[in-house]
Amino acid sequence: MNAATELAVAYIEAWNETDAVQRRSLIEKAFTRDVSYVDPIMNGDGHDGVDALIAGVHQRFPGFRFKLMDGVDGHADYLRFSWELGPEGTEAPIQGTDFAVVEAGRLARITGFLDRVPAE
Amino acid sequence: MNAATELAVAYIEAWNETDAVQRRSLIEKAFTRDVSYVDPIMNGDGHDGVDALIAGVHQRFPGFRFKLMDGVDGHADYLRFSWELGPEGTEAPIQGTDFAVVEAGRLARITGFLDRVPAE
Repeated sequence: MNAATELAVAYIEAWNETDAVQRRSLIEKAFTRDVSYVDPIMNGDGHDGVDALIAGVHQRFPGFRFKLMDGVDGHADYLRFSWELGPEGTEAPIQGTDFAVVEAGRLARITGFLDRVPAE
Repeated sequence: MNAATELAVAYIEAWNETDAVQRRSLIEKAFTRDVSYVDPIMNGDGHDGVDALIAGVHQRFPGFRFKLMDGVDGHADYLRFSWELGPEGTEAPIQGTDFAVVEAGRLARITGFLDRVPAE
Protein backbone atom coordinates (compact mmCIF):
# COMPACT_ATOMS: atom_id res chain seq x y z
CA MET A 1 0.00 0.00 0.00
CA ASN A 2 1.21 3.50 -0.71
CA ALA A 3 0.91 6.26 1.89
CA ALA A 4 -2.33 7.63 0.42
CA THR A 5 -4.05 4.27 0.58
CA GLU A 6 -2.69 3.55 4.06
CA LEU A 7 -4.18 6.79 5.33
CA ALA A 8 -7.53 6.15 3.66
CA VAL A 9 -7.58 2.67 5.20
CA ALA A 10 -6.77 4.12 8.63
CA TYR A 11 -9.62 6.59 8.18
CA ILE A 12 -12.12 3.85 7.33
CA GLU A 13 -10.91 1.72 10.25
CA ALA A 14 -11.57 4.59 12.65
CA TRP A 15 -15.07 5.11 11.23
CA ASN A 16 -15.87 1.41 11.60
CA GLU A 17 -14.62 0.94 15.15
CA THR A 18 -17.45 0.55 17.65
CA ASP A 19 -15.26 0.06 20.73
CA ALA A 20 -14.73 3.51 22.23
CA VAL A 21 -11.18 2.93 23.50
CA GLN A 22 -10.02 1.27 20.29
CA ARG A 23 -11.64 4.00 18.26
CA ARG A 24 -9.87 6.72 20.16
CA SER A 25 -6.57 5.06 19.41
CA LEU A 26 -7.40 4.78 15.71
CA ILE A 27 -8.52 8.42 15.60
CA GLU A 28 -5.25 9.57 17.15
CA LYS A 29 -3.38 7.54 14.56
CA ALA A 30 -5.30 8.85 11.55
CA PHE A 31 -6.15 12.47 12.40
CA THR A 32 -4.12 15.48 13.51
CA ARG A 33 -4.97 16.88 16.92
CA ASP A 34 -6.70 19.92 15.41
CA VAL A 35 -8.40 18.06 12.55
CA SER A 36 -11.48 19.62 11.02
CA TYR A 37 -14.17 17.54 9.34
CA VAL A 38 -17.14 18.83 7.36
CA ASP A 39 -19.68 17.22 5.05
CA PRO A 40 -23.17 18.25 3.89
CA ILE A 41 -24.85 17.07 7.09
CA MET A 42 -22.36 17.33 9.95
CA ASN A 43 -19.06 18.76 11.07
CA GLY A 44 -16.65 18.38 13.96
CA ASP A 45 -13.21 19.50 15.09
CA GLY A 46 -10.42 17.75 16.94
CA HIS A 47 -10.24 14.15 18.10
CA ASP A 48 -13.26 14.64 20.37
CA GLY A 49 -15.29 16.12 17.54
CA VAL A 50 -14.49 13.33 15.10
CA ASP A 51 -15.17 10.72 17.77
CA ALA A 52 -18.61 12.21 18.39
CA LEU A 53 -19.42 12.20 14.68
CA ILE A 54 -18.46 8.54 14.33
CA ALA A 55 -20.45 7.57 17.41
CA GLY A 56 -23.42 9.45 15.99
CA VAL A 57 -23.27 7.55 12.70
CA HIS A 58 -23.10 4.21 14.56
CA GLN A 59 -26.13 5.24 16.57
CA ARG A 60 -28.05 6.30 13.48
CA PHE A 61 -27.04 3.32 11.33
CA PRO A 62 -26.43 0.38 13.66
CA GLY A 63 -24.63 -2.49 11.93
CA PHE A 64 -23.61 -0.41 8.92
CA ARG A 65 -19.99 -0.58 7.82
CA PHE A 66 -17.86 1.77 5.78
CA LYS A 67 -15.95 0.22 2.92
CA LEU A 68 -13.17 1.93 1.00
CA MET A 69 -13.80 1.92 -2.73
CA ASP A 70 -11.13 1.48 -5.39
CA GLY A 71 -9.23 4.47 -6.70
CA VAL A 72 -7.64 6.18 -3.70
CA ASP A 73 -5.85 9.14 -5.26
CA GLY A 74 -3.21 11.37 -3.74
CA HIS A 75 -0.66 13.96 -4.75
CA ALA A 76 1.63 15.97 -2.50
CA ASP A 77 -0.40 16.48 0.69
CA TYR A 78 -3.79 16.05 -0.96
CA LEU A 79 -5.93 12.98 -0.92
CA ARG A 80 -9.29 11.87 -2.25
CA PHE A 81 -11.06 8.60 -1.82
CA SER A 82 -14.57 7.23 -2.05
CA TRP A 83 -16.39 4.96 0.33
CA GLU A 84 -19.69 3.23 0.70
CA LEU A 85 -21.78 2.73 3.80
CA GLY A 86 -24.37 0.06 4.38
CA PRO A 87 -25.19 -3.24 6.04
CA GLU A 88 -22.57 -5.87 5.26
CA GLY A 89 -23.39 -8.17 2.34
CA THR A 90 -25.81 -5.83 0.59
CA GLU A 91 -25.46 -3.10 -1.99
CA ALA A 92 -24.55 -0.03 0.02
CA PRO A 93 -27.29 2.62 0.05
CA ILE A 94 -24.84 5.45 0.76
CA GLN A 95 -21.68 6.46 -1.09
CA GLY A 96 -19.44 9.45 -0.66
CA THR A 97 -16.14 11.01 -1.62
CA ASP A 98 -13.79 12.69 0.83
CA PHE A 99 -11.08 15.21 0.06
CA ALA A 100 -8.37 15.63 2.64
CA VAL A 101 -5.33 17.72 3.37
CA VAL A 102 -2.53 15.73 5.03
CA GLU A 103 -0.13 17.16 7.59
CA ALA A 104 2.86 15.11 8.74
CA GLY A 105 1.20 11.89 7.68
CA ARG A 106 -2.17 12.45 9.33
CA LEU A 107 -5.49 13.83 8.12
CA ALA A 108 -5.80 17.52 8.97
CA ARG A 109 -8.79 18.78 7.00
CA ILE A 110 -11.45 16.54 5.54
CA THR A 111 -14.31 17.72 3.33
CA GLY A 112 -16.89 15.12 2.45
CA PHE A 113 -19.41 14.99 -0.38
CA LEU A 114 -22.24 12.52 -0.91
CA ASP A 115 -22.41 10.58 -4.16
CA ARG A 116 -25.38 8.37 -3.40
CA VAL A 117 -28.09 8.72 -0.77
CA PRO A 118 -31.20 6.63 -0.20
CA ALA A 119 -34.36 7.80 -1.93
CA GLU A 120 -36.65 9.66 0.45
CA MET B 1 -28.06 28.32 -11.85
CA ASN B 2 -27.26 28.08 -8.19
CA ALA B 3 -24.20 29.76 -6.69
CA ALA B 4 -22.08 26.59 -6.85
CA THR B 5 -22.76 26.09 -10.55
CA GLU B 6 -22.24 29.79 -11.31
CA LEU B 7 -18.82 29.67 -9.71
CA ALA B 8 -17.85 26.48 -11.53
CA VAL B 9 -18.98 28.07 -14.82
CA ALA B 10 -16.92 31.20 -14.05
CA TYR B 11 -13.92 28.96 -13.37
CA ILE B 12 -14.27 27.15 -16.69
CA GLU B 13 -14.75 30.45 -18.55
CA ALA B 14 -11.48 31.75 -17.13
CA TRP B 15 -9.65 28.56 -18.14
CA ASN B 16 -11.00 28.79 -21.68
CA GLU B 17 -10.24 32.46 -22.32
CA THR B 18 -7.35 32.94 -24.73
CA ASP B 19 -7.45 36.76 -24.77
CA ALA B 20 -5.08 37.93 -22.03
CA VAL B 21 -7.07 41.03 -21.01
CA GLN B 22 -10.40 39.24 -20.98
CA ARG B 23 -8.87 36.36 -19.07
CA ARG B 24 -7.50 38.63 -16.39
CA SER B 25 -10.97 40.05 -15.87
CA LEU B 26 -12.50 36.57 -15.62
CA ILE B 27 -9.77 35.49 -13.17
CA GLU B 28 -10.47 38.48 -10.93
CA LYS B 29 -14.16 37.61 -10.99
CA ALA B 30 -13.72 33.93 -10.15
CA PHE B 31 -10.70 33.76 -7.81
CA THR B 32 -9.77 35.52 -4.58
CA ARG B 33 -6.67 37.70 -4.72
CA ASP B 34 -4.62 35.18 -2.73
CA VAL B 35 -6.02 32.07 -4.41
CA SER B 36 -3.93 28.92 -4.34
CA TYR B 37 -4.23 26.25 -6.98
CA VAL B 38 -2.60 22.82 -6.95
CA ASP B 39 -3.05 19.66 -9.00
CA PRO B 40 -0.81 16.64 -9.66
CA ILE B 41 1.27 18.43 -12.29
CA MET B 42 1.28 22.15 -11.50
CA ASN B 43 0.53 24.79 -8.93
CA GLY B 44 0.23 28.55 -8.72
CA ASP B 45 -0.79 31.30 -6.33
CA GLY B 46 -2.62 34.55 -6.79
CA HIS B 47 -4.17 35.99 -9.95
CA ASP B 48 -0.77 36.09 -11.67
CA GLY B 49 -0.07 32.48 -10.78
CA VAL B 50 -3.42 31.21 -12.05
CA ASP B 51 -3.06 33.30 -15.20
CA ALA B 52 0.33 31.72 -15.90
CA LEU B 53 -1.07 28.21 -15.39
CA ILE B 54 -3.92 28.83 -17.82
CA ALA B 55 -1.58 30.35 -20.42
CA GLY B 56 0.66 27.31 -20.03
CA VAL B 57 -2.20 24.90 -20.69
CA HIS B 58 -3.23 26.85 -23.80
CA GLN B 59 0.37 26.67 -25.01
CA ARG B 60 0.61 22.96 -24.36
CA PHE B 61 -2.82 22.08 -25.75
CA PRO B 62 -3.65 24.62 -28.47
CA GLY B 63 -7.32 24.52 -29.46
CA PHE B 64 -8.36 22.41 -26.48
CA ARG B 65 -11.38 23.55 -24.49
CA PHE B 66 -12.51 22.85 -20.96
CA LYS B 67 -16.10 21.73 -20.55
CA LEU B 68 -17.93 21.56 -17.24
CA MET B 69 -19.45 18.14 -16.63
CA ASP B 70 -22.79 17.49 -14.97
CA GLY B 71 -23.01 17.19 -11.22
CA VAL B 72 -21.57 20.38 -9.72
CA ASP B 73 -21.88 19.80 -6.01
CA GLY B 74 -21.57 22.30 -3.19
CA HIS B 75 -22.27 22.64 0.52
CA ALA B 76 -21.44 25.56 2.77
CA ASP B 77 -18.20 27.01 1.35
CA TYR B 78 -17.10 23.79 -0.34
CA LEU B 79 -17.43 22.94 -3.98
CA ARG B 80 -16.56 20.07 -6.26
CA PHE B 81 -17.01 19.75 -9.97
CA SER B 82 -15.63 17.72 -12.84
CA TRP B 83 -14.49 18.89 -16.23
CA GLU B 84 -13.13 17.52 -19.44
CA LEU B 85 -10.45 18.94 -21.69
CA GLY B 86 -9.95 18.22 -25.35
CA PRO B 87 -10.41 19.46 -28.89
CA GLU B 88 -13.99 20.55 -29.54
CA GLY B 89 -16.24 17.94 -31.09
CA THR B 90 -14.26 14.89 -29.98
CA GLU B 91 -14.31 12.70 -26.91
CA ALA B 92 -12.14 14.56 -24.42
CA PRO B 93 -8.86 12.77 -23.65
CA ILE B 94 -8.50 14.43 -20.25
CA GLN B 95 -10.94 14.59 -17.34
CA GLY B 96 -10.49 15.91 -13.86
CA THR B 97 -12.27 16.82 -10.65
CA ASP B 98 -11.59 19.99 -8.72
CA PHE B 99 -12.34 20.56 -5.09
CA ALA B 100 -12.52 24.17 -3.94
CA VAL B 101 -12.94 26.27 -0.84
CA VAL B 102 -15.01 29.41 -1.44
CA GLU B 103 -14.46 32.73 0.33
CA ALA B 104 -16.95 35.55 -0.11
CA GLY B 105 -18.24 34.09 -3.35
CA ARG B 106 -14.90 33.49 -5.02
CA LEU B 107 -12.58 30.50 -5.28
CA ALA B 108 -9.87 30.65 -2.63
CA ARG B 109 -8.23 27.23 -2.65
CA ILE B 110 -8.51 24.75 -5.48
CA THR B 111 -7.14 21.22 -5.40
CA GLY B 112 -7.36 19.34 -8.65
CA PHE B 113 -7.29 15.62 -9.34
CA LEU B 114 -7.10 13.82 -12.68
CA ASP B 115 -9.75 11.26 -13.55
CA ARG B 116 -8.64 10.42 -17.08
CA VAL B 117 -5.34 11.04 -18.82
CA PRO B 118 -4.20 9.96 -22.27
CA ALA B 119 -2.36 6.64 -22.50
CA GLU B 120 1.39 7.14 -22.74
